[in-house]
Amino acid sequence: MADVLVMYKKSDMIPMVVTEKHIEEIEKCISGKVYWCGSEEEALEKGYDAEILFIWGGSGKMPETYCKQSKRLKWINSFSAGVNPIMDGSISELPVRLTNAKGIHGKTMALTTAGYMISFMRNSSELYRRQLKHVWDKKFECQPLEAEGMTVGIIGAGAIGCEVARLSKALGMTVLGVKRRVTPLEYFDEVYSDDDLDKVLPLCDFVVIVTPLTDATRHMFNMDKFRIMKKTAVVINIARGPVVKEDDLIRALQTGEIGGAALDAVEEEPLSSDSPLWDMDNVIITPHCAADSKLYIDRAIAQFCENLKLYEAGKPLLNEIDMKQRY
Amino acid sequence: MADVLVMYKKSDMIPMVVTEKHIEEIEKCISGKVYWCGSEEEALEKGYDAEILFIWGGSGKMPETYCKQSKRLKWINSFSAGVNPIMDGSISELPVRLTNAKGIHGKTMALTTAGYMISFMRNSSELYRRQLKHVWDKKFECQPLEAEGMTVGIIGAGAIGCEVARLSKALGMTVLGVKRRVTPLEYFDEVYSDDDLDKVLPLCDFVVIVTPLTDATRHMFNMDKFRIMKKTAVVINIARGPVVKEDDLIRALQTGEIGGAALDAVEEEPLSSDSPLWDMDNVIITPHCAADSKLYIDRAIAQFCENLKLYEAGKPLLNEIDMKQRY
Repeated sequence: MADVLVMYKKSDMIPMVVTEKHIEEIEKCISGKVYWCGSEEEALEKGYDAEILFIWGGSGKMPETYCKQSKRLKWINSFSAGVNPIMDGSISELPVRLTNAKGIHGKTMALTTAGYMISFMRNSSELYRRQLKHVWDKKFECQPLEAEGMTVGIIGAGAIGCEVARLSKALGMTVLGVKRRVTPLEYFDEVYSDDDLDKVLPLCDFVVIVTPLTDATRHMFNMDKFRIMKKTAVVINIARGPVVKEDDLIRALQTGEIGGAALDAVEEEPLSSDSPLWDMDNVIITPHCAADSKLYIDRAIAQFCENLKLYEAGKPLLNEIDMKQRY
Repeated sequence: MADVLVMYKKSDMIPMVVTEKHIEEIEKCISGKVYWCGSEEEALEKGYDAEILFIWGGSGKMPETYCKQSKRLKWINSFSAGVNPIMDGSISELPVRLTNAKGIHGKTMALTTAGYMISFMRNSSELYRRQLKHVWDKKFECQPLEAEGMTVGIIGAGAIGCEVARLSKALGMTVLGVKRRVTPLEYFDEVYSDDDLDKVLPLCDFVVIVTPLTDATRHMFNMDKFRIMKKTAVVINIARGPVVKEDDLIRALQTGEIGGAALDAVEEEPLSSDSPLWDMDNVIITPHCAADSKLYIDRAIAQFCENLKLYEAGKPLLNEIDMKQRY
């Protein structure tokens, strides 16, 4: 009889709201009880101890004390994709299994990315600045563009990248992908290997970065890369901040090496209020919310429930991460 | 030997820029000469007189003096869709044929519309206001949404409406259409007749207005309509301003009858600088530029060239408008 502890405050992070409905869904999938607390402190105070723990392992403080004290804990499910705070801390040394929420982010992030691209094509930021000044004026230095005839390069053609490709194709763009192992993929006009990145970048009007952060990808986008891009290219980072060397990006934007950027992630979050990026007319900053959605927790719970059934049946879990191995 | 006069200033309206390349394309399709002037005055001064006139007939002052004085004029092609300024003036009494550029706006306007919808789903205006204040904050009163599970109602399911439907479907939305004559249409989940508008409106998260302005559609969207919409519904007007009763719209936004609006057209353009619409957080105003595009003139010239060939061959013209009949 496995119990589940959901450790997540109702009002912690909008739009990540766990509701009674979600708890009921979990209850249907598990033989044991489902507990719900808002913090590690509350869990310790109430003496909860469950075989399965459902937490946000993507950022912030991890419940290391709870996990170490627990006598029953066997499996932690994080409803984030990135689980660096767990992997980097003491929990990774415990004999517990770990799963993440890989696979539920594609639709939302692709929608957000399409929004960035359309904003740049349609001069939306400039139009909105004019609106704030009550100015009705459709003259632009740069003519409004559209998707037809444009090329998007998707760097990291995984689950999220494929969904970005699908929408880009629907918009009418040429879609190029870059991934470690080249395989033909639906919605991509061409898929290149990592080694061919420098061949792909000069062709792109939009460069969408979806690659995970690893030692190999840290500062992958630096001045050498910006220099070979089109002067009009827009860099969109929906991955992790450090994949882009921010000083170089700022310089590339200031000197006109590239045409613009949409950044959902920056090297240090929150972005410092004195960063020059905030005031650049050709930059869109969003506070790491490209995947946020009213549907996020619904999807995370549905995925967790699927995994709970596998767990109860003694079958292999989805999205299991080997904590013994750095990834 | 039919000559063509292109009456359009190079720098008149960005992104509507006629170039030498365009003139060359026209030359290839016609037996006579192609002249190009920047204004009616220049045409009169230079003594131009051509059988075919290519102008912007969508807004502004029409070349009525030139047309009346012309001895050769037989056909006016306007590269706008709406030609009210021609129909409402003295040119309509001349024995000349008129064609418009119907059919070239779909892709651009659908792209713009997708942009409005994604902006509302992703709280983009609020995020941009925060960017302008250097604020990194992802907490919202309204959770960011996405297309899945949303319903868009397209009022006026013509060529533009169908392209809006195609993109909305790609985004994952349920697509409802309203048109005069009900026919099954690709990308629409259901098509209703004009009479069923009041059945459709309560179902929609987005109401996209693409219907032409006629006596029947003037002020079609008034408080009666706003009242039956969802409180969260967003009204998108990419048609003509007077299709919406603006006072009612403002009241509906102020009282929360609807959730927001994206307006590319308003009753009187330019929108008065003291209109309350400018400062509403849940309103996007764009200066009638939803169809503007770097590709616009390319497409208009391609369409005109097709028509020139038909004209030279004595065949019926595309998009001919009967000037004797108010439409």
